[in-house]
Amino acid sequence: MERSVFTEDHELYRESVRQFVAREVVPHRARWEEAGIVDRSLFEAAGEAGFLGIAAPERYGGGGTPDFRYNAILSECLAEADVLAVGLGLSLQADIALPYLLDHCTPEQAERWLPDVVAGRRILALAMTEPGAGSDVAAITTTAVRDGDHYVVNGAKTFITNALSADLVITAVKTDPAAGRKGISLLVIEADTPGFSRGAKLPKVGQHAADTAELFFDDVRVPAANLLGEEGRGFYMIMGHLTQERIAVAVQATAQARRAYELTLEYARQRQAFGQPIGRFQHNRFVLAEMKTETDIAQAYLDRLLLAHAEGTLDAVDAAQAKWWTTELCQRIVDRGVQLHGGYGYMLESPIARAWADSRIQTIYAGTTEVMKEIIGRSLGL
Amino acid sequence: MERSVFTEDHELYRESVRQFVAREVVPHRARWEEAGIVDRSLFEAAGEAGFLGIAAPERYGGGGTPDFRYNAILSECLAEADVLAVGLGLSLQADIALPYLLDHCTPEQAERWLPDVVAGRRILALAMTEPGAGSDVAAITTTAVRDGDHYVVNGAKTFITNALSADLVITAVKTDPAAGRKGISLLVIEADTPGFSRGAKLPKVGQHAADTAELFFDDVRVPAANLLGEEGRGFYMIMGHLTQERIAVAVQATAQARRAYELTLEYARQRQAFGQPIGRFQHNRFVLAEMKTETDIAQAYLDRLLLAHAEGTLDAVDAAQAKWWTTELCQRIVDRGVQLHGGYGYMLESPIARAWADSRIQTIYAGTTEVMKEIIGRSLGL
Amino acid sequence: MERSVFTEDHELYRESVRQFVAREVVPHRARWEEAGIVDRSLFEAAGEAGFLGIAAPERYGGGGTPDFRYNAILSECLAEADVLAVGLGLSLQADIALPYLLDHCTPEQAERWLPDVVAGRRILALAMTEPGAGSDVAAITTTAVRDGDHYVVNGAKTFITNALSADLVITAVKTDPAAGRKGISLLVIEADTPGFSRGAKLPKVGQHAADTAELFFDDVRVPAANLLGEEGRGFYMIMGHLTQERIAVAVQATAQARRAYELTLEYARQRQAFGQPIGRFQHNRFVLAEMKTETDIAQAYLDRLLLAHAEGTLDAVDAAQAKWWTTELCQRIVDRGVQLHGGYGYMLESPIARAWADSRIQTIYAGTTEVMKEIIGRSLGL
Amino acid sequence: MERSVFTEDHELYRESVRQFVAREVVPHRARWEEAGIVDRSLFEAAGEAGFLGIAAPERYGGGGTPDFRYNAILSECLAEADVLAVGLGLSLQADIALPYLLDHCTPEQAERWLPDVVAGRRILALAMTEPGAGSDVAAITTTAVRDGDHYVVNGAKTFITNALSADLVITAVKTDPAAGRKGISLLVIEADTPGFSRGAKLPKVGQHAADTAELFFDDVRVPAANLLGEEGRGFYMIMGHLTQERIAVAVQATAQARRAYELTLEYARQRQAFGQPIGRFQHNRFVLAEMKTETDIAQAYLDRLLLAHAEGTLDAVDAAQAKWWTTELCQRIVDRGVQLHGGYGYMLESPIARAWADSRIQTIYAGTTEVMKEIIGRSLGL
Repeated sequence: MERSVFTEDHELYRESVRQFVAREVVPHRARWEEAGIVDRSLFEAAGEAGFLGIAAPERYGGGGTPDFRYNAILSECLAEADVLAVGLGLSLQADIALPYLLDHCTPEQAERWLPDVVAGRRILALAMTEPGAGSDVAAITTTAVRDGDHYVVNGAKTFITNALSADLVITAVKTDPAAGRKGISLLVIEADTPGFSRGAKLPKVGQHAADTAELFFDDVRVPAANLLGEEGRGFYMIMGHLTQERIAVAVQATAQARRAYELTLEYARQRQAFGQPIGRFQHNRFVLAEMKTETDIAQAYLDRLLLAHAEGTLDAVDAAQAKWWTTELCQRIVDRGVQLHGGYGYMLESPIARAWADSRIQTIYAGTTEVMKEIIGRSLGL
Repeated sequence: MERSVFTEDHELYRESVRQFVAREVVPHRARWEEAGIVDRSLFEAAGEAGFLGIAAPERYGGGGTPDFRYNAILSECLAEADVLAVGLGLSLQADIALPYLLDHCTPEQAERWLPDVVAGRRILALAMTEPGAGSDVAAITTTAVRDGDHYVVNGAKTFITNALSADLVITAVKTDPAAGRKGISLLVIEADTPGFSRGAKLPKVGQHAADTAELFFDDVRVPAANLLGEEGRGFYMIMGHLTQERIAVAVQATAQARRAYELTLEYARQRQAFGQPIGRFQHNRFVLAEMKTETDIAQAYLDRLLLAHAEGTLDAVDAAQAKWWTTELCQRIVDRGVQLHGGYGYMLESPIARAWADSRIQTIYAGTTEVMKEIIGRSLGL
Repeated sequence: MERSVFTEDHELYRESVRQFVAREVVPHRARWEEAGIVDRSLFEAAGEAGFLGIAAPERYGGGGTPDFRYNAILSECLAEADVLAVGLGLSLQADIALPYLLDHCTPEQAERWLPDVVAGRRILALAMTEPGAGSDVAAITTTAVRDGDHYVVNGAKTFITNALSADLVITAVKTDPAAGRKGISLLVIEADTPGFSRGAKLPKVGQHAADTAELFFDDVRVPAANLLGEEGRGFYMIMGHLTQERIAVAVQATAQARRAYELTLEYARQRQAFGQPIGRFQHNRFVLAEMKTETDIAQAYLDRLLLAHAEGTLDAVDAAQAKWWTTELCQRIVDRGVQLHGGYGYMLESPIARAWADSRIQTIYAGTTEVMKEIIGRSLGL
Repeated sequence: MERSVFTEDHELYRESVRQFVAREVVPHRARWEEAGIVDRSLFEAAGEAGFLGIAAPERYGGGGTPDFRYNAILSECLAEADVLAVGLGLSLQADIALPYLLDHCTPEQAERWLPDVVAGRRILALAMTEPGAGSDVAAITTTAVRDGDHYVVNGAKTFITNALSADLVITAVKTDPAAGRKGISLLVIEADTPGFSRGAKLPKVGQHAADTAELFFDDVRVPAANLLGEEGRGFYMIMGHLTQERIAVAVQATAQARRAYELTLEYARQRQAFGQPIGRFQHNRFVLAEMKTETDIAQAYLDRLLLAHAEGTLDAVDAAQAKWWTTELCQRIVDRGVQLHGGYGYMLESPIARAWADSRIQTIYAGTTEVMKEIIGRSLGL
């Protein structure tokens, strides 16, 4: 069934993104995965093409269109070209980190940061997770102590996307360690500030082009002018942005699931065994029918939410539902795809193999499946 | 998230159906389940209320509105009142059997049958399945031999809904046994025709108010004027009607799933164990979160299809996808509901217990899950 | 693979049980299911054949052989003849209730009760569950107040197997309501004691020949001589007997799973569709292969535990593991069997349909799957 | 429950293997994974320790004990030290390839090859799979044309374990391309034979220390004296060895599953979130209970088969059942382990992450899950 959530404008945009991905991403994938990081020029090219700041005001170089469907299109185009994980840093910048700046910057901060961020000249990271605090954000221990016009930051973060390339790190800190959730604030830390350093790239199961690493803060003096929003509101600001973050991951998961289905269908049509294409075996045919059905169902739900999000009516529970279900589905489908590819499904040259390793983190980051079920469960009045 | 598939007119209609169900169905449920059959007066009341012929032309007493969303509302209201299976005969009449008459009757036949059918004065049955031919429709062996102005019918059918109460039986017969699919025709057999008889009610696991039974045809002389559509086109007519039949079942399954979720949520709020409502245990809370998520997802997909069906663009593959997925989901959800109800979930006085037993047939009738996957699989160009 | 847990003596015993089941149970099944209760004579016949008291000392008429493998054989023979649920009362008597008497009776009580119980002249019930206390045994509210040489019992029990036919009801009561678990005691209540009454049979989804009902205690004066074991030790006595109770259910579940597999295999060999036996379709063949594999695996684990139980080394965690896994497996397998039977799988005349409805309670009674996982989880030192 | 399949001799052997693994494997893991291949010295050390030829006659330096339980112990010790995949080449040599030589060598061949193979001085590979023929062995196209005292071999193999280090390659070839299964033979090809070459190491999702690669045969002249067994019997020889190969994989999968459970249990005890060890959350506790239950069940079945194999009564269907079920289980369990580890589960420094990536191939190699179900299904008389 045709999707009905996109307008003609969206489809024109999709065409330009598709060409961009084919030209600027696909040819470099293998090199970037080998290097463990993408070139900075990717961000600049994406910024120039206008993909990083669709939602930013025009006077900062943005598109002036806070319509998340444009963001969704970027993820869909990356997935269909088998480079979703390579574009992860772009998604982080445009879908997840930029909204913090758009929603909470003072006019001065906006002037200072947004033009470069939208243009891809400055790369963002979001530093929440710590070695001892993942889903449990309130348990962070990185501190920021006010000292005149500065905050002095000490602590460490881990599993940070864009860690090695980031120029601006939106960092969750405890400004009042005794106040629990109400003692958390957000600081924008510029990467050339003394005392800020980065760990070695963390070897991961997949997403090899993503420069995930630890960040260390050792008496980093951050100007108070870099405080984002109000002091003590950080926890609530984070919670407020998670809805879009989760929808962003749901979009990626659904697009990846669809791509895995298509790759597998194609393989099943061509690969021969026991005298016929393997897709002709009833078991495989049923597996493909299940993959298609569940992908279509996920898409219908997600599209409903994308529309609601565009209309400003999406709530946190819907996003949590979409997040856990589509990411779990993506893993089931990619796993079935690997199985049907046989030995080729285990070789990294196969897109399905990379998709399998890349997508495993989806049920963990941006809130685990378990945290999603807690959010839903707590809304039930039990 | 609010559903968006219904208009205000639909909601007004829903209100009248809801009252009808509360007044005409719920008070009689236990008695009808005990008797193994509903009163004929239920059909007459439903006809009078205008629920049986929404899609029929006004000149036969119908609503003149071929909008299946009205049909969906009836199933939804039955499910929310825990009487879905009691209303099964109504659904059969309005959703599944009536369209055969609407699409294929000659004007003379329409005059003869439609007014009574729409009014609920004549009850329909659809007789396809035989002891040796279920999913494999082409394997039927009931024959109709032309003899002057009549067909002489011999054979037997089984698992027929409304078997004991039916006045008009739309019957699949072989008019040309050598021609395979092209030898199948449909005859409308009136129940008082000599040689037509009914078997005893077949005891089933659930759906106790449905008068499911065998039908026997022993030299039944059916007027040629009762041939529905063209001779030899029966197989294709049946296939053509299966799309709506499957959507009808998907509507029932989704509505039943939602009801099972609501019943279970309510129970989990009230039932105490180990000092707290059982819904407070994390495992149960997660189960409820899963039930809600998957019901919402099913609903979004189904609503998308209901809209397409209203617009005339629904295809057989989409219907097959919805049919297998929602019915399998319904069984998973009802089963989780039973488990969470503990011992009460096994007692027939509990709606969840009846839902469990009633819904088990959904993945079997109207095309098994396996047949659905074949239909989808064959559309994939493998 | 051949099972290795049984000796030649066991196999001789199995042969006699098999004949007994064919002669004394199978011919009466339909009548007993219709009546909602088995004839008392079944217990007498089983007692006479020596099946009810294998574990009881010879001087009370027992077999003097506390080897649970004999009990397992009875369940296996019932399952293979499609009458497992019909023999449920026998299993309750021999596997679950009798051990309470064997372990805790004084010599006087043993003389008074055991000969009749072993002979099947007196039928046992075990009354623990209450309307407000299922898995949470400590929450029972039935009280027994000491008054001279008697206890005065007030309260109600529900979901009691053998409720209508029981002569001796082993009843959990609170002798010290303030003492929590330490205030629970067990009384053997004779059914003709004034104030004791039984509710109507509770209509269930399946197990139609089992006379499950409520029991009411209204100032029932029970002689103190009927106290089983020590006052205040009831909770611990119950916990101590649950290991065998759970193995008994695991035996039934595994035997039922195997039978469901065999019935389905047989059906798949004979039923034709689309020109061949349905078992030749790859999907069905795979389903059957899965059913066989998982049944064999369950059997291997269970047999390992049966041997340990015979050697006295079985622990509660192993029993909990076997209980939840085999009962969940049984339901999966029976459900797959129903699906493969198509419409026939929903008709009560099919053994697979009855097995489906009968076995649904297995994951609930004798401790739910959730309680089993708690028991295992708590043993892990978390 | 204690396992009962091992004797005291086995346990003594286990102790020496455990020490060997700690000393000779664990310290080199990271380096070997980085290099994509293990040092040849590992084979020599294992040979010297007597682990490679347990089943070989003593006169060739072997243990003279065709008891596969010794082989199982090696895999179990590798798994418990988180180096199962690093030892894969050893398992291939000892469990899978050596039996071909033991069963089919002429005395002359045995003299020529066995001493070095048993001593680990010559490394074996088994070359069956081709780019166009995986599960479908009969579809291989590598040919061997008799030319005097030699066969001239042309073709290519892929996904070959030990490809880069192998000295002797047991190679499936078509000696009679027109004869289908009956035209397949096995040749032992020495790696220094002209025309034999190896492809680059194939980058895989996991098993990074395994030197998996393609092999190419370009007019390789192999002495006829290197024919293994009879010409034309290769297909049947391969089939005959698959039973042990599958049990070997089942042993690895079960050992890996147990290790994943233990790693996860340990992590759940120590990792804190929301104020308590994460294992205290009911959901996680239930997951751990499920992991433990299913691992125990798999072990019980596997041990039953190990005993049967030691007694020479293991059949192909049992091995197929164990293979598919334990490998699918292993993947489920490792996957649950990753999820419970959160972000750490995605970092290659975590043993659970490596286990996840390493084990994915288990349901594919040595016969896919689908092929296993075919084998079982075909034994059912359908």
